[in-house]
Amino acid sequence: MLSRYFPILEWGRTYNRSVLSHDLLAAVIVTIMLIPQSLAYALLAGLPPVVGLYASILPLVLYAIFGTSRTLAVGPVAVVSLMTASAAGAVADQGTAAYLEAAITLAFLSGIMLAVLGLLRAGFLANLLSHPVISGFITASGILIATSQLKHIFGISAGGDNWPEMLGSLARSFGDTNSWTLAIGIPATLFLFWVRKGAKPALQGMGLPARAAEMVAKAGPVAAVALTILAVLAFDLDGRGVSLVGAIPQGLPPFAMPSTDISLIEKLWVPALLISIIGFVESVSVAQTLAAKRRQRIAPDQELIGLGAANIASAFSGGYPVTGGFARSAVNFDAGAQTPAAGAYTAIGIAFATLFLTPLLFNLPIATLAATIIVAVLSLVDLKTPGQLWRYSKADFAAHVVTIVCTLLAGVELGVIAGVALGLLLYLWRASRPHAAIVGRVPETEHFRNVERHKVFTVPHVLSIRIDEALTYLNARWLEEYVLEQVADRPAVRHVILMCSAVNEVDASGLESLEAISHRLADGGICLHLSEVKGPVMDRLKRTDFLDELNGKVFLSQDQAFAQASKDTGEPRAPTDHDAARGLI
Amino acid sequence: MLSRYFPILEWGRTYNRSVLSHDLLAAVIVTIMLIPQSLAYALLAGLPPVVGLYASILPLVLYAIFGTSRTLAVGPVAVVSLMTASAAGAVADQGTAAYLEAAITLAFLSGIMLAVLGLLRAGFLANLLSHPVISGFITASGILIATSQLKHIFGISAGGDNWPEMLGSLARSFGDTNSWTLAIGIPATLFLFWVRKGAKPALQGMGLPARAAEMVAKAGPVAAVALTILAVLAFDLDGRGVSLVGAIPQGLPPFAMPSTDISLIEKLWVPALLISIIGFVESVSVAQTLAAKRRQRIAPDQELIGLGAANIASAFSGGYPVTGGFARSAVNFDAGAQTPAAGAYTAIGIAFATLFLTPLLFNLPIATLAATIIVAVLSLVDLKTPGQLWRYSKADFAAHVVTIVCTLLAGVELGVIAGVALGLLLYLWRASRPHAAIVGRVPETEHFRNVERHKVFTVPHVLSIRIDEALTYLNARWLEEYVLEQVADRPAVRHVILMCSAVNEVDASGLESLEAISHRLADGGICLHLSEVKGPVMDRLKRTDFLDELNGKVFLSQDQAFAQASKDTGEPRAPTDHDAARGLI
Repeated sequence: MLSRYFPILEWGRTYNRSVLSHDLLAAVIVTIMLIPQSLAYALLAGLPPVVGLYASILPLVLYAIFGTSRTLAVGPVAVVSLMTASAAGAVADQGTAAYLEAAITLAFLSGIMLAVLGLLRAGFLANLLSHPVISGFITASGILIATSQLKHIFGISAGGDNWPEMLGSLARSFGDTNSWTLAIGIPATLFLFWVRKGAKPALQGMGLPARAAEMVAKAGPVAAVALTILAVLAFDLDGRGVSLVGAIPQGLPPFAMPSTDISLIEKLWVPALLISIIGFVESVSVAQTLAAKRRQRIAPDQELIGLGAANIASAFSGGYPVTGGFARSAVNFDAGAQTPAAGAYTAIGIAFATLFLTPLLFNLPIATLAATIIVAVLSLVDLKTPGQLWRYSKADFAAHVVTIVCTLLAGVELGVIAGVALGLLLYLWRASRPHAAIVGRVPETEHFRNVERHKVFTVPHVLSIRIDEALTYLNARWLEEYVLEQVADRPAVRHVILMCSAVNEVDASGLESLEAISHRLADGGICLHLSEVKGPVMDRLKRTDFLDELNGKVFLSQDQAFAQASKDTGEPRAPTDHDAARGLI
Repeated sequence: MLSRYFPILEWGRTYNRSVLSHDLLAAVIVTIMLIPQSLAYALLAGLPPVVGLYASILPLVLYAIFGTSRTLAVGPVAVVSLMTASAAGAVADQGTAAYLEAAITLAFLSGIMLAVLGLLRAGFLANLLSHPVISGFITASGILIATSQLKHIFGISAGGDNWPEMLGSLARSFGDTNSWTLAIGIPATLFLFWVRKGAKPALQGMGLPARAAEMVAKAGPVAAVALTILAVLAFDLDGRGVSLVGAIPQGLPPFAMPSTDISLIEKLWVPALLISIIGFVESVSVAQTLAAKRRQRIAPDQELIGLGAANIASAFSGGYPVTGGFARSAVNFDAGAQTPAAGAYTAIGIAFATLFLTPLLFNLPIATLAATIIVAVLSLVDLKTPGQLWRYSKADFAAHVVTIVCTLLAGVELGVIAGVALGLLLYLWRASRPHAAIVGRVPETEHFRNVERHKVFTVPHVLSIRIDEALTYLNARWLEEYVLEQVADRPAVRHVILMCSAVNEVDASGLESLEAISHRLADGGICLHLSEVKGPVMDRLKRTDFLDELNGKVFLSQDQAFAQASKDTGEPRAPTDHDAARGLI
């Protein structure tokens, strides 16, 4: 029980030296990769670079205690950094203390929200983000992020809350391009792109074993950092208008306090909620992917608690919202991390770097960090999905495209909200117009199929309708209209059989509709039967007096129902005014 | 086509003298009944009595042109009047011009909303109001309305926006009770209660034929009006503190303009939307009930247009929100109305009354109107439903009770919103945890049933899972977890068959989950098969490359799938690390 909330008690018991050595190696590799990445994402969030390092220390320790994924690496990630920038930017100007406080408060709020959702086992709320909405959001975010970093590559100042604004602002100040900055930014970007694809084969060509080559290639950003620092020193670019990281305060994370200003919290809670859900969904999908590779298991609701703890820790140590990142987790996994302890060791590594290595980064050009971001996020932009969705499902395509367009034009928050809202609306619309089919028996079998799709046997006085949907309040009204119309079009009908093999639930509204249908058919001298009612549904119906009032029977199989009803070959009565009436003229 | 938007062109063509005579008779009876009712509901809405008459003229004519129900009678109704009072009361004080303007603007806004929803064919949005939420709302409204009228019976002044406040305010001013008012109010109430149940038998006892007796009984409120007016004259109650209707301006409805003040519209659009949806749902259910009795048909989306036109007309003729009322429609139906023309004739009748009869109502005690309201709404209070819901479905019960409690404590708007929100949340929660069952073959048949509920045949290396839900983004994550866990618990399994007879849809997220499952099972040397895939679902899957990547087959019937998979009796391999791994240790 206790180990459900403290997974560390689970894997901690079997911790031994061999696991330790694996975890340590992974930690070293991840640390090296994380230093430039943390600085870069802090820059993307509009925060001082050191905040990125702070966000990569305590949160990792807390996740190691509460998290259920063996290999997930938490910390600053691109999309959440962008959302932080947009939310904090809405309440304060970059570079001000208020802006930093807003970022810290966002981490605190989203930490609380995640933890509460976890304790309430409310992880299912993340389901509201469908795959098309998520991928649309990620794609659009990638475009926004890459665009936002171009100014650092060109050494110009530009702003904008949405894509058109960003492009416009870039175009206006394009003239001020600093060629020295460009001379750093362009090569750095090209180098990093090359590293992504070309480095591994090249290194193997130089005789390195595949896995080592992969690890070294992963250190590409570090090489870019070192090379550009050297370039700055060699050509004294500091004096030539190339903006550098500059002095990073040395020392461990400070103790910070989130704001308790209600008016600020009122402004930040919606973005904090979105950051929580987006972060959770991204993190869980990464964790599940990696867990599946080693046939391990994660507990989504406990993940909420783990991420919540990590974010609260981030807030109190002067960091900003964090979540499980794909790149870092993949590296951690490939480097052979066995337990979350690897994360704790990484934290120690980052702390060490913060204490002693930051002076080395004084001359690191911002352009280099921008390049690492651009290369990282462009891999998020997915151009194949829209086509696939269009072919498969227009509704999913719509949700995908609306999310992309709204995110680009109206910002990340409205983008997500629009996508979720449209997805839900389309879902409700479909749920209110479910699929149903008139069925007949496939000759020589006991199977019943759609009369429009198969050669099947039917008799005029028996109408078999297969309802392909749970009967809930969303489609209760539809059910009444559909059944009565079908009957109205068939004056000879004297038995209606509702085939319920696909009816997984009947809620109170659905029950009322069934009762209404039964009464109206009875008035018309028609028997209503049910067949293949599912166990759980039947148990429920037995608790009502619907089955007593029903003027037909409930059959275990559609075959029996059809056989019995067909037997009743009483001459179809001469059309009465009832029949005319059932024509609902 | 044109007659789809103007149903009058449909029934107008066949209009003849016999239909005319029926409609005229119905119109006379409804008019007599409507006069006191209209005054009473205007009082309930906190408006001058004459506004109730205005709202019963032009709207009826417009509905006659655009409505699809032959017998629905539109006009002021209790619940909508209460909602109007609550919405207008939030922006202005009763009796002020601003309050009247707010009511007119509400009618205009809800008219526009209804018409737009109708043109968009968005009637399905009304499905969001489940039966339990509606009945809970009606019950709570009935209690609130009855309580709000008690002050008129006692001749005291009292207020309050929610039930506790109302009761408290009544208790405080209880001492000021005007005994003369009470002497009118109590008998009137008792008389009207008696009329409801006892009048018809009594009249029949006096030899009246049943139908006539029923019609006369319906005129009970008119008798109460006449008697109490006489009482006022006889005992000169005017001078004794009994508040009377007083002078009602004579003449046809004025031309009124809804407010164009944006700030006011911002305050009113939410209540207007709720009034529209509640009014629409109430009206459609009345219309459907009556239509079914005569085997007629209504078109819900066109009903939206009809009610929209009626409300816009109400706004421009100085009225307030209207909708189809149950009582008046039932009377119209029983009185033999054949076409919406009856409504138009009723409008003429009310107009005539407004022109010439209003002076007769000068001495009508407010208490009499309050009595008619109380008797009318107490029949709305339904105390059986909660128990039935509790037995049938805890979720529906919760939505019902939350709606009642929130409506009583927080007012009509929050009540509806809370009910809808909870209903939706519970729906999403259920949708994210669908029902699925491990199935086996019922001996001697081709049927497959839940292994936990039936004696069925299975083989250890074949796992048949029946998914009892459409695979949508709401349960995509669940599907992956469920299937992999089931496989993990059965190391001998080499074939997994997903029985899709209940899978009515697979959206893009569901497809991604199926692909993920297929890949992970393949890694474990397990074949994934599908059976009984529905036509529409299969058509869609064929448009993807999922079927090519699938390492199993798709079978028309579960029986074939099971037979084929069972044949593959290759000795279950010695447990490999794959199997251990599939234990997701």
